[in-house]
Amino acid sequence: MPKKLLPIAAMGKIMKDAGADRVSNPAKKALKEELENIARGISEKAVRYASHAKRRTVKASDIKLASK
Amino acid sequence: MPKKLLPIAAMGKIMKDAGADRVSNPAKKALKEELENIARGISEKAVRYASHAKRRTVKASDIKLASK
Repeated sequence: MPKKLLPIAAMGKIMKDAGADRVSNPAKKALKEELENIARGISEKAVRYASHAKRRTVKASDIKLASK
Repeated sequence: MPKKLLPIAAMGKIMKDAGADRVSNPAKKALKEELENIARGISEKAVRYASHAKRRTVKASDIKLASK
């Protein structure tokens, strides 16, 4: 997965919102990579579900089904 | 969770990378919301794991444990 998908700064913000006092840079990178992997898995499923429904457009319902 | 954590444009990019021809705007929003919820869940766990280890800094090992 390319390096520049999810912004690293957002990871610090999310962890602060969750109650973190301080966050290491490797922790931000680890969260970014985990989320990108999850996003890829959901997206690959959603693409298959759209195709199965004979659509070329991925819709919110595909994402919702893929997230279950 | 605040509106502006993960950029909506990144969601389209991730889905295109996963093979999507076209992606609806609600699909991008659905993926963004799903990822933000997952991120919050992982982060809240990671904060508890850091605290349990008597640290105030969330480290990559906390994120990795929380992602399992």
